Formats: sequence, C-alpha cells, structure tokens
Amino acid sequence: MDFYLINNAFPAQVMVGAGALARLEWDREAGKVLIITDRGLLHTENIAKITRLFPKADIYGELSGEPTSAMVDAALEFSRRSRYDLVIGLGGGSALDTAKVVAALHGSRETVAEVFGKDLLGPRRTRMGLIPTTAGTGSEATPNSIVKDSADGVKKAVISKELIPDWVVLDAELTLSLPAAITASTGMDALCHCVESALSVHANPFSLAYSYHGIKLLSENIEAAVADGADLEVRGAMLLGSFLGGLALTIAGTTAVHALSYPLGKRGVPHGVANGMLLPWILEYNLPACAERLMALAPYLQSVKPLESAADIVDLTFEYVHTLPVPQTLDEVGIEAECLPELAAEAMKQERLLANNPRPLTAVDALALYRKLLAKKSTDG
Amino acid sequence: MDFYLINNAFPAQVMVGAGALARLEWDREAGKVLIITDRGLLHTENIAKITRLFPKADIYGELSGEPTSAMVDAALEFSRRSRYDLVIGLGGGSALDTAKVVAALHGSRETVAEVFGKDLLGPRRTRMGLIPTTAGTGSEATPNSIVKDSADGVKKAVISKELIPDWVVLDAELTLSLPAAITASTGMDALCHCVESALSVHANPFSLAYSYHGIKLLSENIEAAVADGADLEVRGAMLLGSFLGGLALTIAGTTAVHALSYPLGKRGVPHGVANGMLLPWILEYNLPACAERLMALAPYLQSVKPLESAADIVDLTFEYVHTLPVPQTLDEVGIEAECLPELAAEAMKQERLLANNPRPLTAVDALALYRKLLAKKSTDG
Ligand SMILES: [Fe+2]
Ligand SMILES: [Fe+2]
Repeated sequence: MDFYLINNAFPAQVMVGAGALARLEWDREAGKVLIITDRGLLHTENIAKITRLFPKADIYGELSGEPTSAMVDAALEFSRRSRYDLVIGLGGGSALDTAKVVAALHGSRETVAEVFGKDLLGPRRTRMGLIPTTAGTGSEATPNSIVKDSADGVKKAVISKELIPDWVVLDAELTLSLPAAITASTGMDALCHCVESALSVHANPFSLAYSYHGIKLLSENIEAAVADGADLEVRGAMLLGSFLGGLALTIAGTTAVHALSYPLGKRGVPHGVANGMLLPWILEYNLPACAERLMALAPYLQSVKPLESAADIVDLTFEYVHTLPVPQTLDEVGIEAECLPELAAEAMKQERLLANNPRPLTAVDALALYRKLLAKKSTDG
Repeated sequence: MDFYLINNAFPAQVMVGAGALARLEWDREAGKVLIITDRGLLHTENIAKITRLFPKADIYGELSGEPTSAMVDAALEFSRRSRYDLVIGLGGGSALDTAKVVAALHGSRETVAEVFGKDLLGPRRTRMGLIPTTAGTGSEATPNSIVKDSADGVKKAVISKELIPDWVVLDAELTLSLPAAITASTGMDALCHCVESALSVHANPFSLAYSYHGIKLLSENIEAAVADGADLEVRGAMLLGSFLGGLALTIAGTTAVHALSYPLGKRGVPHGVANGMLLPWILEYNLPACAERLMALAPYLQSVKPLESAADIVDLTFEYVHTLPVPQTLDEVGIEAECLPELAAEAMKQERLLANNPRPLTAVDALALYRKLLAKKSTDG
C-alpha cells in the first residue's frame, strides 16, 4: 500500500434510526415518483410506509430472486413509459440494484447489458433514494449494481458514481419481519463484505475503519438477530454493519468468496447463502497469504473461545456457518458433484474479484474448494 | 441516540502516502495560488516541496503560535491585494485554520470576527487545498477553524461546510522533522479528538468507526513516533489517526478536555500540551457517567497491562502523560494557582463543547479539575 485516495463518494445523506422512514423529509415534493420493490414486499407494511409518504407514486413490484438483465430491462421499459423525477428502491439487494440502474438509465435508451463495466454511465437525470429492508448487500452504500446477464448467465457489475444514491434511510423497523434464515444468510453476506474487504489486496488503512467496525457490529449481533428478530437495537446494528460493509467494499473490493459465489448464484443459490458457505473455506485457503491481517480481525470478532491465531479465526467462521441457520454444503442447496468443474470455470471469469484476493487462485484451486463444500467440515478437522 | 444523519461532508479528495505531495496532480493549473504557512516552515524542505509544484505561488508565512483574529485578518488583508484562485494551507493546525478562513473570506470584505459561529459563511469562491505537517488537529478533515478573538482572548470557532477543503494531502514525509515533544503533544491532541468524540453525547454508531480506528492507530504508534521520528510507517499511521480524529469530531464534537484546554491556550500553553495534560483527569471525572463507553475503548488501546475496567483505561491515559515528553502539571507550563478561578470561569464559556460532555460540569467542577493539574498524580493514587 504505497499511495491511496480517500474519497467521500458515498451517499450524500443517510438517515439512521428505528422509525426513520416515517420522518423522511427529503424529496417529498419531488414530482413524479417511481418505487421499485420486490414482489414479496407488495401489500406489506413496508410498502404501506413508503406509499404513505408518496401517495401518488407508481409502484413497480415485478422483482423476485436476484436481478437478471431481462428483469432490469423490463423495469427500465416500465419506467420509460413516464418521466420520473425520483426513483426509490425499497427492498433487498435485488430491488436496490435494479432501482439504481433504472434511475441511472431512465433518461437514456440503453439496456443494462450495454453498460456492464466501469464508468460507462452518462449523468443521471433522476433523483435516487434507497431504503434497504435486509441487512446484507450494502448496495445502498456502493456505486455497484450486480446483475446476471441473461445472455450468458454470468453475474456482471455496473460500476459508476452515478449509481450512488442521493439519500438512504436505514430504518431497522423495516427489517423486523425478516425470517431467521434470511437474517442469517444476508447477515453472512454483509460479514463477507467486511472481512473480504479487510483482506483484499486493495484494503488500505482508511478502508479498514469501515471493515473493522462493520465486523464488530455484525459479529456482535448476528446471532441475536437470528434468535430474536424483534430486537430493534440488534437489527439496527446489523443494518449499519451492512452499510459499513458497502463502504468498505467500495474502496477495497470483495475477493474469492464472491468470485466463487456467483456461479452458485447462477444456479439459484441465494447470494448470502452461497457466500456464507464459502467464507470459512476461502479464509482457510487464504490463511497462508494473510495470517497477520486475518489475526488483526480478532479484536472485532465476538467469540466465546479466545482467538489466539489466524486459524482460530477461520474456525470461528466455520462455527458461524455451523451454528446459524445457513446451509453448509452444496448438497443442501441442490448442487451436485458433476457441476463442479463448470462452477470452477465460471468462477475464473470473475477476474476483477480474484485480482483482489490475497492469495492467487487458479481453476484447480477453485475446483478443490468447491469439492470441500460437498461435505460438512468434520468437527475434529 | 434515536435518529442521526450520516453525511459525507468531508474533503472530496484525500491523497495518502509517504511522498504523496510530490505526486500532487490536483489544481496544478489553478491560476493564481496563495500558500499560507507557519513562519517556522519558511526556508524548510516542506515549503520547497510545495513551491516546486507551484513555482509562481505567493507565500504568506507570517503565522506563529496559535491563530488570533488579528493574525487571520492580517492574512486576509494580504490575500485581498490580489485575486487568488487557489489557497493552500501547509503547516500545523494554525496554518490550516488560517488558510481555511482566508480561502472562505477571500472574496468578501468580512473580518473573521464577523463570522464566528455556525453557518455564517457565504459560498467560497476560491479552491482550497490543505497539507498538514503535524499529526494533531485534524483540521484538514473538519469544517471548523478555531481562532482566538483578539478582542476578548476567547477561542472561538468558525463552523461551515465552506471550510471543508477541496483536497488534502496526507504525506508522512512532511512530518519527519517534527521534534519529539511536538510529536507527543500534537499526537495527544489527535488522541483527545478520537476519545472525546467517542464519549461525546453526540457520538453515534457510525462516528465510532472513525473514533475507534483513530484510537487504535494513535495508541499503537504514538510512543514509536516519539522514540523514532524517522519511521515513515509510524508517522503515516499518526497522520491518518489525526485525520480520523477530525472526521470523528466533526460528527460528535469534543468535550470538556477541549473546553478546559482553551483557557490554557489563551495563556500560551500549546493546544496539544493543554489537552494532553487534561485528558486523564477529565476521563477520571467523566468515568461515573460513561464507564461502559469508556470500557468499549479497551480493544483499541495499546497497553502492556490488561485493561479490565474503565478505571484501567483512565490509568492508561495517566501513563501516557507520565511517559511521553509532555507536561503533566500547570506548574510546568507556568500557570499559577491564583489563576484557577479565572480559568474555570473562562472554561464555562465553551458551552458548545461542555454540552457534548457525558457528565455535566460546573465552574466548581472545573476549578477542582484545574486544582488537580497543579501537582503530579501520585503513582499510588
Ligand atoms: Fe455480496
Ligand atoms: Fe484539538
């Protein structure tokens, strides 16, 4: 780390607090408003809360699962039937990632596939507000949208400062109804963002402030959030941890966990589930290359056992996956052994992420890692 | 902490790294440039480095000691003889605080006394770059300038987003020549910013990311920086710790340490010296009101002894003042017992800072605290 830039390209305004959404004052007179949300949130109290603030808004609620370019283009198509002044994304990472692209491309004629890559977006002409209802992707804090290209099934990124929202609301009340399993898997995604960004070759002493504090908040609260989803303080800590994960990954990037996760995502494994399952194995693989930096995470990780070595930290992440209601094996998510070479080949396409990984990783390494995911880690391992 | 805002109002661009200044690319074609610096830096290599980049720049180097309104107005007066496109502050907190006001008021006719307070500045018409040569005030990260009002001797603040620079360079090479005593006292100032902001009633879970990481960097490196001023890695960590202190105090504010420090500053005690001396005593005073939040600092504080209680943390700060080359008593800085009631009365005028303190503090309390500063803390105390 010789030279680095700190830039403050994160959302201009973020309002935090349980009940914050009801107090939203930004853009209340914005003109024509489009709300983009997950199908599963239609007719829920969360949507009622936002429509109370914007009673004349149009709602696009056709999203389910993780976004594909076809889904995003359909949302864009819908948006272009009118002229919107404000696009609000409310929901999980899919709703936010879709809303970001819709806001950015609303005034153009491009499809999302035409803007995969970095800095390919023209100036956004629409205001954008994001309201996460899960504590996971941290998409509200990043200049990225991750979309599966319907043409080849590969997860690709749109990266541009135009995707940074004008405002964000982090209201823990909106996450209260998340089931335990989703709390656990999305929480593991957020933890991956913080841990991966801390170990990335592009981590810097400033980005570690976000990574470390995120790790602290998430590791102190993930178990409690799963056990008692109604605890607002715990939910609030998870939501801020997820936001910090987004800030950290914006600077330092994610690594091999996310690279190997995407091929699983392509086969329908939810993003957080895939990451959670991979995290301990990738840390075990990375350990020889970053033992000291792994050990530096110890003060921030909640653990009943003392964390005396980097190996203890790897074990702690196995513990998480073992204890939390998240799958531990490919078998549990319906992925069979004969897929593995294909998965490994696809993971290699995530060059941007693999380049961040502290230890080089070839297709052979990826294959060996996926193999380990076939069976549970033996407790005496 | 019910609701809070996270806003990213910190410098738009910060370049970090030993040797970063020589690589500066921003504003190199800025037109007419004014460099504001400390008198002590004239004819040093640090000034040579900046004039190599801006050979036609005018230099105003009349600053010495902490800025008074007369000094700032003189600098303003000088600046108004020309029309500058860029004002660069290079130096310690005094040079930066002065440069900030000069940049902000260059295009107006106001004196600094007319803009003491919050949000009283019109739009700044000049670009501004700040280059700290001490790791202390963190002024490069804040929207504040602290200036002693020559009319009444009271330290007052100009607070406005117009004082946030366009760019900052954190180049540890510029701090290599700082003597050990100044390294220690300015480092203690930075540590105060991080600790006070962590305990302020306006601390929030986000600002703690900056406070905690700053505490970690500063406490891990302050001794080494004093012992071996030539270690660039250590100097770099101090500089980033100081920057993080500025970010943290911008959100959460400083507390009684700074409130009681200003009356000492008025009598010529350097800012960092006054804060360093006060920190342990104020923490001891605050302990009953914030034991848990004090204890939360333990993982970030470098300590040979285990930190098992909030009292251990207070003791650790006594240890710092005892070990580092900073004065411990008012006697050492030439302040006599008969001044104390006057000091206490003046400290009470720092209402903005006292309102941040986790424990209410009256003039009687302030007097008792100043009395404790008369003698060294006994080692068995
Ligand atoms: Fe992710
Ligand atoms: Fe200070």
